[in-house]
Amino acid sequence: MRNVTFPFAKGHGTGNDFVLLPDPDGSVHGDLDPELVRALCDRRTGIGADGVLRVLRGDVDGGAEWFMDYRNADGSVSEMCGNGIRLFARYLAASGLTDESPLSIDTRDGVKRAVFCADGEISVDLGEPRVGQQVKVGVEGRAFEGTAVDLGNPHAVVFVESLDEIGSLDIAPRYLADDFPHGVNVEFVVREGDQQLAMRVFERGVGETQSCGTGACAAVAAASHPHHRASGAPYAVDVLGGRLTVTWEPSGRIQLKGPAVLVAEGTWTG
Amino acid sequence: MRNVTFPFAKGHGTGNDFVLLPDPDGSVHGDLDPELVRALCDRRTGIGADGVLRVLRGDVDGGAEWFMDYRNADGSVSEMCGNGIRLFARYLAASGLTDESPLSIDTRDGVKRAVFCADGEISVDLGEPRVGQQVKVGVEGRAFEGTAVDLGNPHAVVFVESLDEIGSLDIAPRYLADDFPHGVNVEFVVREGDQQLAMRVFERGVGETQSCGTGACAAVAAASHPHHRASGAPYAVDVLGGRLTVTWEPSGRIQLKGPAVLVAEGTWTG
Repeated sequence: MRNVTFPFAKGHGTGNDFVLLPDPDGSVHGDLDPELVRALCDRRTGIGADGVLRVLRGDVDGGAEWFMDYRNADGSVSEMCGNGIRLFARYLAASGLTDESPLSIDTRDGVKRAVFCADGEISVDLGEPRVGQQVKVGVEGRAFEGTAVDLGNPHAVVFVESLDEIGSLDIAPRYLADDFPHGVNVEFVVREGDQQLAMRVFERGVGETQSCGTGACAAVAAASHPHHRASGAPYAVDVLGGRLTVTWEPSGRIQLKGPAVLVAEGTWTG
Repeated sequence: MRNVTFPFAKGHGTGNDFVLLPDPDGSVHGDLDPELVRALCDRRTGIGADGVLRVLRGDVDGGAEWFMDYRNADGSVSEMCGNGIRLFARYLAASGLTDESPLSIDTRDGVKRAVFCADGEISVDLGEPRVGQQVKVGVEGRAFEGTAVDLGNPHAVVFVESLDEIGSLDIAPRYLADDFPHGVNVEFVVREGDQQLAMRVFERGVGETQSCGTGACAAVAAASHPHHRASGAPYAVDVLGGRLTVTWEPSGRIQLKGPAVLVAEGTWTG
């Protein structure tokens, strides 16, 4: 792995940050070594990020010209990443790799559709959230009741009265393997108003992050269920790294909107 | 500050990481806005680093062709940085900006001399440590006795029996303003053998870091004083991010040696 050189870009959506690896035909990174992902994401000895987004050409017959190969900071493969795919769309447009708008992007959770909004933000359709059963989630010896939500990746949404309640708690979750055999992302959510939530999030394979797009959608789905299911009214979701807007449409599909910012591009040598 | 584009590099010495800003004639960054330094060093929305090293041409008549303009992650100016100057030397050589060896580099603490060692590491002469009085340093309600050491920047070295003793303590220090009117770096140090130390370090203007070069030298100076002053025998100093070698020479001068690794270069847009 030493003495390799390749191009990268770095960016974030509400503080959820990613290293982008352009690799259209897969010839640069092959199977993408998990060790390389960890090295790139290391915040001291690497570039530092919550995850890696490899930019691969997709199977156009399958529905999209580009495929987002997403990896968590620990090197593990993940199905989808709501902030990641918004940054992925920004990168494709800014690099001149596409002029498609709206833009279809293939992922391990199927083809998603990204919209370049007039206010400069990027919105993505994350499909239909599936709100599941009640689950128990523990952190640092405290037990909470949460709601399982599937958004292509698994979430447990826990409502609390105030984020002060979890204060400085390490929110790395403990949970029943029967509930989440593939691990889980956990959101601690406060209702701040009719259409406003605030949350902290723990991402499987990463740790606590500034923001999680699918997590914000899971929070809105759980907050809306069952009485206000799919009202079509946008929720403002305040995460540590900024504000996301989530709309659960009457069709059943959920839209995640927010800023997506490229800050650097260059060459890695490691 | 928005919509500016300029080149950068990123690297580290034993996990103490820096953004390098080439700016030979000072025309790119002017006075170097502290807000820009904070933006670059932000580990989510920026590139992420413990500090910034601006690469400025020096006053050759003053003794060095290059001047290291070092800033802490919080935007504050600092006199010197032991790991930073080793990476600075690596950058100058790797970029072809110098072929001088040993290499003189000007800093706010005067001209330093960097040596490219046969094993690939870089050594730097950090001048003459001045071991001062005993001082009190508190962390999270616990009080410790330490030794003040001046290495161009101020240090307080606290010896403990074991790093377990400080365990998960937040090591952000409290101290008497009379002792350290300009703040202080604090090292918690364990003697692991005759010529071997292990330490954790809190850097003024940054927080706890993986490594601090002047801190490792301060630890060796305090460990050697007064009985083994300047023995000339090298100490191995284990920091969280790797191993440094520190030699306090009979001349009174101290040498810091260790790895210095460039991992990325590119263009910032922010």
